[in-house]
Amino acid sequence: MFFASDNTGPAHPDILAALTAANDGYAMPYGADDLNAQVTARIRDLFEAPEAAVYLVATGTAANSLALATLAQPFETIFCTGEAHIHEDECNAPEFYSGGAKLTLVPSVDAKMTPDSLRTSIAKEETRGVHGPQRGPVSLTNVTERGTVYSVAQIAALTSVAKDYGLATHLDGARFANALVALGCSPADMTWKAGIDAVSFGGTKNGCMGAEAVIFFDPKHAWEFELRRKRGAHLFSKHRFLSAQMLAYLEDNLWLDLAAHANAANARLARGLKQIDGTSYIYEPEANISFARWSRRAHQTLHKAGAAYYVWNDDLAGDDPDEALEARLVTNWATTDENVDQFLSLIRG
Amino acid sequence: MFFASDNTGPAHPDILAALTAANDGYAMPYGADDLNAQVTARIRDLFEAPEAAVYLVATGTAANSLALATLAQPFETIFCTGEAHIHEDECNAPEFYSGGAKLTLVPSVDAKMTPDSLRTSIAKEETRGVHGPQRGPVSLTNVTERGTVYSVAQIAALTSVAKDYGLATHLDGARFANALVALGCSPADMTWKAGIDAVSFGGTKNGCMGAEAVIFFDPKHAWEFELRRKRGAHLFSKHRFLSAQMLAYLEDNLWLDLAAHANAANARLARGLKQIDGTSYIYEPEANISFARWSRRAHQTLHKAGAAYYVWNDDLAGDDPDEALEARLVTNWATTDENVDQFLSLIRG
Amino acid sequence: MFFASDNTGPAHPDILAALTAANDGYAMPYGADDLNAQVTARIRDLFEAPEAAVYLVATGTAANSLALATLAQPFETIFCTGEAHIHEDECNAPEFYSGGAKLTLVPSVDAKMTPDSLRTSIAKEETRGVHGPQRGPVSLTNVTERGTVYSVAQIAALTSVAKDYGLATHLDGARFANALVALGCSPADMTWKAGIDAVSFGGTKNGCMGAEAVIFFDPKHAWEFELRRKRGAHLFSKHRFLSAQMLAYLEDNLWLDLAAHANAANARLARGLKQIDGTSYIYEPEANISFARWSRRAHQTLHKAGAAYYVWNDDLAGDDPDEALEARLVTNWATTDENVDQFLSLIRG
Amino acid sequence: MFFASDNTGPAHPDILAALTAANDGYAMPYGADDLNAQVTARIRDLFEAPEAAVYLVATGTAANSLALATLAQPFETIFCTGEAHIHEDECNAPEFYSGGAKLTLVPSVDAKMTPDSLRTSIAKEETRGVHGPQRGPVSLTNVTERGTVYSVAQIAALTSVAKDYGLATHLDGARFANALVALGCSPADMTWKAGIDAVSFGGTKNGCMGAEAVIFFDPKHAWEFELRRKRGAHLFSKHRFLSAQMLAYLEDNLWLDLAAHANAANARLARGLKQIDGTSYIYEPEANISFARWSRRAHQTLHKAGAAYYVWNDDLAGDDPDEALEARLVTNWATTDENVDQFLSLIRG
Repeated sequence: MFFASDNTGPAHPDILAALTAANDGYAMPYGADDLNAQVTARIRDLFEAPEAAVYLVATGTAANSLALATLAQPFETIFCTGEAHIHEDECNAPEFYSGGAKLTLVPSVDAKMTPDSLRTSIAKEETRGVHGPQRGPVSLTNVTERGTVYSVAQIAALTSVAKDYGLATHLDGARFANALVALGCSPADMTWKAGIDAVSFGGTKNGCMGAEAVIFFDPKHAWEFELRRKRGAHLFSKHRFLSAQMLAYLEDNLWLDLAAHANAANARLARGLKQIDGTSYIYEPEANISFARWSRRAHQTLHKAGAAYYVWNDDLAGDDPDEALEARLVTNWATTDENVDQFLSLIRG
Repeated sequence: MFFASDNTGPAHPDILAALTAANDGYAMPYGADDLNAQVTARIRDLFEAPEAAVYLVATGTAANSLALATLAQPFETIFCTGEAHIHEDECNAPEFYSGGAKLTLVPSVDAKMTPDSLRTSIAKEETRGVHGPQRGPVSLTNVTERGTVYSVAQIAALTSVAKDYGLATHLDGARFANALVALGCSPADMTWKAGIDAVSFGGTKNGCMGAEAVIFFDPKHAWEFELRRKRGAHLFSKHRFLSAQMLAYLEDNLWLDLAAHANAANARLARGLKQIDGTSYIYEPEANISFARWSRRAHQTLHKAGAAYYVWNDDLAGDDPDEALEARLVTNWATTDENVDQFLSLIRG
Repeated sequence: MFFASDNTGPAHPDILAALTAANDGYAMPYGADDLNAQVTARIRDLFEAPEAAVYLVATGTAANSLALATLAQPFETIFCTGEAHIHEDECNAPEFYSGGAKLTLVPSVDAKMTPDSLRTSIAKEETRGVHGPQRGPVSLTNVTERGTVYSVAQIAALTSVAKDYGLATHLDGARFANALVALGCSPADMTWKAGIDAVSFGGTKNGCMGAEAVIFFDPKHAWEFELRRKRGAHLFSKHRFLSAQMLAYLEDNLWLDLAAHANAANARLARGLKQIDGTSYIYEPEANISFARWSRRAHQTLHKAGAAYYVWNDDLAGDDPDEALEARLVTNWATTDENVDQFLSLIRG
Repeated sequence: MFFASDNTGPAHPDILAALTAANDGYAMPYGADDLNAQVTARIRDLFEAPEAAVYLVATGTAANSLALATLAQPFETIFCTGEAHIHEDECNAPEFYSGGAKLTLVPSVDAKMTPDSLRTSIAKEETRGVHGPQRGPVSLTNVTERGTVYSVAQIAALTSVAKDYGLATHLDGARFANALVALGCSPADMTWKAGIDAVSFGGTKNGCMGAEAVIFFDPKHAWEFELRRKRGAHLFSKHRFLSAQMLAYLEDNLWLDLAAHANAANARLARGLKQIDGTSYIYEPEANISFARWSRRAHQTLHKAGAAYYVWNDDLAGDDPDEALEARLVTNWATTDENVDQFLSLIRG
């Protein structure tokens, strides 16, 4: 009953098998391995972007921070929501990598910007000439940090606002596959065809051990990114082990199958929760994350039984056993129906 | 015949097996995995340092830069040799992580500082009050970047100079095991007993896939290091896969066996080279790296036969077939006697 | 009729006279001038703080950024309001000087934090362990950027919240004298006695040419600040010209007289505006800044007549001559009654 | 007898008079003052560079660091000599402003690079691909920190090497006027006609209170520089007081007259020193700085008499009264013949 995060789950066996297969003899280091060339070709193909610059790193925070530092000047501000991982969960890594750029928090609904809120936030900046920060890139997250999903049309509407101001756009795709499966569109549809310039393409949360791709659709950023990656200490010497993970992840649609499984597990969880009296949903679960409330009593039962998840904005301790407390639940490729059903039955009490 | 670098070799099968073993069910992320607690205990035990702060990262540059950033203020200068990896091969990562500290290059002999050269370099700084950079940590590399090895007494003599000025000391141990085997001493002897405050303890070059430990003997640096690691995007979510590597690496003296093998392969190579007419040694090979010169003709034969290594300061192209060109050769845990002998026979022509 | 900002006004003649007087022969550079020792003694005396570290710089942004960088770690967040100069008007200087710290915007009323809003903002941080930024210093501005003034009790209540969390406190006193005169208290009352740890003590807006002091009541920050000032290129070689300004500024209560004059001019302006039909106040004018609204027609008349001030959140262009537009008006030591009265008569039309 | 530095001297009376003249009524802040437009026009005219971007700051370190940060990427290295002010005397400001760029020390003779030493230093970088820093701008100082002067031909030869590698060039002209007078050429000859891209044009050491111009001959850098200056807290609100200084400095060739005076005073000093037995010159004095050696006995006599100058690499304390110790002597616009002669007579004993 592990619903704490998709990064608490195991790597998929195919990923580990690929590591073993890659561990044969010598390979050129630092991205000059043959597998890396295959990854680049595969991702360009998947994204219908034959010119794209593609790089691998091991953490999502590295992907985001390096991508944003490449797109932003230190005297600019990056537009994101207040729920954004880059704002809440990266311990100032974007500020560090960009040399001190600011993050401007765009008001959000269900962790999503709207074209209006984005336009208003952008318009407010650069009204003070040299005194205020200059407008920098816009960063969206899909799946959002609250489990909601931007539709392709919503992404396009937001990037259109950014383009009105000449701003670059970044997609934090730590859960890219989960969003894609939820939307049923192509990688190109969800990114460059919708106006996205750079993508953090996550693998770690969806079955890899630690592998993320950064994709720039305009290759002009390529060499600068390579230098920033090395200077950030994120260039792997035994790079083949990143390549092998990403290649296996993309092989035979493994990535999509794993995300579909995680999303289905969350849907099962959501269906169950909705049938339980006294349980309420906070956001509509669209991918592999649910936010819901139920009684302290049921939370305590779950914790005693070893269920792992975050009580989000509330405090498990407290006197009133009937008080409704908020939970964040994340399913992953390895979540079983039994996990879900056991969890539900414990809430039912 | 791969002598390009120890990072072109494969990971040891035991390391991969450990990854598979660790991939069982759920594990707490971000260093809260049980294996990480075991790694910490194991390293404290190995180093006879029950209070030490121990952290894992995936690259040697991350280990060095984060360790130095924790020890140095941005208005200080770090003392190292001109051959140091932190100076030559990290694309300004130490400058980046420290917020703009300087590196002062201490004159070296065989890539090693001497107490005199270090003392002179330190004494020259802080003679200009607030105008010049302040004295910061001293960073040594053992095995050095030229394959030489500081003895325990040499390390102690250098840290003693640093201590005279109240400066912290860092050991870049990307090839820690190779140095230790060469010296035949204990980890404690080569580090804190010799005055070292922080260590980058390398695993990647010696059989891991990508795993390095940073060790501070004074735990006061612990929390700051954790924050700097996260902010640098080097905290792994599926951290168990770093822990598993490092634990397997240290199990049953695997790390020492692998280093002993690599050092022996290099000794065999050196013995062979010395017996070949027209071949000369540049540094005495003490661990798993050799620098030697032989004719362009022999270099060309080797390259045609697929041998991989760096022609270091010279240019393989050129007219004179008899001109002696410099090679850097690195052996690793997987280098076989056959590799060495075939290589030697090609030089012999 | 210059009400654009207090930095558009001239320097007071006494300040210029002091420069001339200081320009006699040779003086030790970089703060070793005799006048600097006098400034330090004078400020310590004024603040009843015999141990305080006192330094001069030429701009308010330098004072703020260097003070905050000394108090904040790069992995921390600084608490300020959304109206704060450090957020809106310093082009990311605090982020730059701190090495990438974040600014957390505390909800404000009349550009002032409340103990509740501050406590809530602080409490929200550090709930995510190593993932989010750590709590850093709290920065208040008095006079605020909207012309309101924190009372001594209000400052004490806010610093008390900060102290509950062990956080340092900074006062942006770009208009320190105007606030002090408005409050009728002593410098010590408004600062360390009310829990403030560091002050940007402004001179430039109140009659200096370009001189600000940074004061730390705990001298432990002294040497680090000196190094940060030099590294920020803010240490003047001919430092006596900063010292001379600040000394003349503090001589015979010049600074308080000038601020009292500016505040009185603003009060006259406010009284007049309140008597004009169709004019409304936005914040209660407590020092030397007014925010008020009147018709576009009157704004246009003023601009034609050469009045200089900012139309703040509105657009002077537009069709409706009766629409009320917001103005920011700043008086200074050189504002005359005639300036004010002429301005008022133009609005009256 | 003040020969400690040209920044210990007073400002020229004309500079102070200009401040007073500028202090008349209101002026637009932050560089929008009318005098700033005049300064820009005047400097463009002087440099025969009608398109040049021209900005004022108050310190030489700000001019250098901001200019270099505009020309260098954080993953690059800046080429300068080991004697360079940017290396020795700016407490890591160039590293800070550039976001962590490195400084590569080019071997020098008499504090001057040679085309060969520069070419060798540049060629050594970028031999390690993404691993080492990339080649960045070349920074020369004229007058050098040892009082020697690059000829126009020498500058052109060095910038030609830089251009071979596509590198930008910067001239630290803290003593620009002294060099120009020594060379007897035009500002254009010494800069863009000789291949210089950006200049720190010093005023402070030669009679200003604190005013330096930064000049980019290619105006493409203009807006970025403005943002970097503001973010560095170096944009003055009462900017007219920087403009007024620089305008007066350039009026009626004041700057050249003052430099000619300082150079002549140094020549007189040098002539006198050379006639004293036991005194030896270290560098040939070409502008307003001398380095010479004489006995400890004479140094002690001078210090007792109140002479102010730096004993450079030696220690005034010591037993042997006949030991020759090194002195650095700097003359300035206010140095009188009497100062020089009195100094000389004290050495003569």
